[in-house]
Formats: sequence, structure tokens, C-alpha cells
Amino acid sequence: MSGPVITGTIHGVGLGPGAPDLLSVRADRLVRTTRHIAYFRKAGRPGQARRIAEGMLRADAIEFPMEYPVTTEIPVSDPRYNACLSAFYAQCTEKLAALARSGEDVIVLCEGDPFFYGSFMHLHSRLSGVVPVHVVPGITGMAGAWNATGMPITWGDDVLTVAMATLPEEELVRRIRDTDALVVMKIGRNLPKLRRAVAAAGREEAAWLVEHAAMPNQKVTPLTEAESVTPYFSILLIHGQGRRP
Amino acid sequence: MSGPVITGTIHGVGLGPGAPDLLSVRADRLVRTTRHIAYFRKAGRPGQARRIAEGMLRADAIEFPMEYPVTTEIPVSDPRYNACLSAFYAQCTEKLAALARSGEDVIVLCEGDPFFYGSFMHLHSRLSGVVPVHVVPGITGMAGAWNATGMPITWGDDVLTVAMATLPEEELVRRIRDTDALVVMKIGRNLPKLRRAVAAAGREEAAWLVEHAAMPNQKVTPLTEAESVTPYFSILLIHGQGRRP
Repeated sequence: MSGPVITGTIHGVGLGPGAPDLLSVRADRLVRTTRHIAYFRKAGRPGQARRIAEGMLRADAIEFPMEYPVTTEIPVSDPRYNACLSAFYAQCTEKLAALARSGEDVIVLCEGDPFFYGSFMHLHSRLSGVVPVHVVPGITGMAGAWNATGMPITWGDDVLTVAMATLPEEELVRRIRDTDALVVMKIGRNLPKLRRAVAAAGREEAAWLVEHAAMPNQKVTPLTEAESVTPYFSILLIHGQGRRP
Repeated sequence: MSGPVITGTIHGVGLGPGAPDLLSVRADRLVRTTRHIAYFRKAGRPGQARRIAEGMLRADAIEFPMEYPVTTEIPVSDPRYNACLSAFYAQCTEKLAALARSGEDVIVLCEGDPFFYGSFMHLHSRLSGVVPVHVVPGITGMAGAWNATGMPITWGDDVLTVAMATLPEEELVRRIRDTDALVVMKIGRNLPKLRRAVAAAGREEAAWLVEHAAMPNQKVTPLTEAESVTPYFSILLIHGQGRRP
């Protein structure tokens, strides 16, 4: 005779910017002790979140890579883009919920912080109220990036703007003109547009590109010298210059 | 005969938003093993950074509380404010550099992330090039706050604006109108002004106040119901509503 099955919990775990010892103590414990490990990745790639957790998983860990069905093949504006991603998230949700209902805890590995421009939130919104879901916050990728430059991002009453390079060029120019400190993510193929926008806002000399923050191949480059930057893993920063007694 | 003294290192250590298991593994190790522990606090208060590290320090730890000489007695616009703080930071720097020169490592406990609106950066700029200084990034207080609400702060291409409540009221209104997601810190005595600004921007229904994020006394309140909020330990949030497939 066996007792009733206790529903497991889905943990969205922030892994931080890249270094294995920049996981929180709470995240580190969950990653090392949980058997079911899920993570997003592009088809054919190891996945950045999985890479951060390399060497930390239990020997008997069961991995569930969730491979994005589209990334850049369909334009974001095409309704099929949303429909396709939506079906994918629903499918992942069903699998995770089934594991939880069978009594298993599952962790979803997330780069940076799960509630800050992550994919996990699309599972979180679908799992909430269905099975128990917990989130472990993490050090954001942008904090890893400004730490890599060795300079504070904000001082005194500085305004910080965080924007995605996917925004229209004129919108980027306006945002860059109207802020003290700046973080731009999702650079990818938008790097040329972003460079033009930073130049148009007159701040090219103040901008830095950080690649692979907190990883062994970390690289910090002034934007004016950025000829060979890996755009996908890059964050652009402009440091604030506020009050400093 | 003794060898030459090796200069110690000053570590600015981000402790995260409040929970002891939200320190990074790297920070946790430094806090538990280093003998000299410095931290800022208001005179007569335990200090938020020191409180987070409670129970973690070595039994033989030597503590160096750095007590702010002024906080709100002199207006920020008064030149004496900057002069007084500047002398204070110089004095702290001298003490820390002397310890490092005598061969001792020192950690400076920092709430959140040391390079994000912290006091440590005023020591960092003075210590750099004088003695070795390292920074350990941390989970920001704002990430603790949005995690406390159980809702992602940003989706898709949302713009996030981080602003201090010390800004002029009309500037706050303009910033709140012109962003998708919002974080406001340094609320303190500016709470009434901030409430007026959020209302004038038409976003009172979307705003949340988070007190003591990631601490046992954590409290999340819709701004419209915030009658008894502790303004000093509060962060105001408006969540983005961006694309969600």
C-alpha cells in the first residue's frame, strides 16, 4: 500500500551571469540536489544556462532540454511567430506539470534572473495555479557586465534605462539621449543599428560592449573599437556619472 | 626573520536583497572566512548589510562599522554635505588601505550589488590603484522586490526605468509616463511626492510597494492601499506588460 502522491514543485532557478560560484547558495543547493533538470536552448546548441551548470548536476540527473522551435526564421511581427512559441511553451508546461503531479521536483535552469527578460516567465504564467512554482532570483547578466568593466553603473540620483536592441532605431536614439546610465540587451543582429543609435545620441565614446560576462572568455571592449564582437552574448553599457562626494 | 608583508585585498561583497541563502557562493565563502569585516551604517543602527550577515561571521571577526556622519540633517544641495561625506569616505579609505598594507584582507559588506547605487563605490574609486580591490556582484534589492511580488518585471521588448524618488516631482511624472516597467528606490521621506507622481502619470493602479524584500518581514502592498509603509526599506515597482506568446 502506498500513500497519496505529494505534488512536486517547479523551481525556476536564476543561475546568475555565468561563473559557477555566482549562483546563490539557495540556487547552488537546488542545482546539486534535484534530479529533474530542464532548460531552454536553441536546437543543436548546448544552451547557456546548461553550460553554467556544467559539472554541478547529480550523476543520475535526468535532463529535459526544451528546444525553441523558432528563433530568427520567422519575423517577430508575423502572427505565426507567437502561435508557434505559444504552442511550444504549452507543450513544455504540460511535461513539467506531469512531472510535478507524479511527485517529482523539477528545476528550470535560467541565465541571470528568471523574472528579468527570461523565457521562464512564459512557463511561470502557465504553471501558476496548476502546480507549485517557486522562483529563485539571480544576479542579472547586466550586473555581471558592469562588474566586468570595473566601474559602477549608477551613482547618486542617476536614471538607469534598460532597453532591448530590438527597438526601432529612432526610439533607441531617444532613449539613449534621455538617460544617465544605459544597459542594452538582445543585441544579436541589431549591433549595427545600435551603434548608429549610440553615435546619433552623441555617446559613442562612453559606451562599452561586454561579452560573456563572468565567464572565462569575458571580454570588455570600448564600442568605438568593437570590430569583432560576438553580438549574441553581448551587453552594451553606458555608465552614469552622477554625484560622487 | 620574517618575509616581506604581502598586501591584502579589499573585497566589496554584494550580499543580495536580504535572505542569507541569497548570497552568492563566492560571497558566502568570503563572509564566513575573512577576519576583518567593514560595513556602513547610520549611527545607532545595526545597519542593513550587517544584519544580512548575522550569524555568518567568524567567532574571532574584527568588525569596523563605518558610521555616516550625516544623512538627512544637511540638505544634499548644501556644499557642506558633499564636503562632510567626502572627508568621511577618505577616512574610511585610509583605515582600509592601512589594513591591506599590513597584509590583512578586508571585506566590505554591501546590500544588493556593490556597483548599483551603493556606498561602496565611493571607497572603490578611492582605493583603486592604491591597494588591490575586488568586487563580488550580488542580487540587487530590486530583483528581490520583483521576486517578492511573484510577477516578472519585464517581458519581450519592455523598457525598464530605474529612478530615485529624490528626483523632482515633474521629472518623476515624465519618467513614469515614458516607461513600460519602473523601479523607484531611495523612497524615504519622498513617499508622498512619489505617490502624487505615480497618480499624475495615471499608473497608480499598477504600482506596488515592496518592503524588506527577501527578509522575514517582507511585505507587498498595492500603492493604492499603502497607508503604513516603512518608506526607508521600500522599493516601488510597476511591472511591464510586454509581448508574451
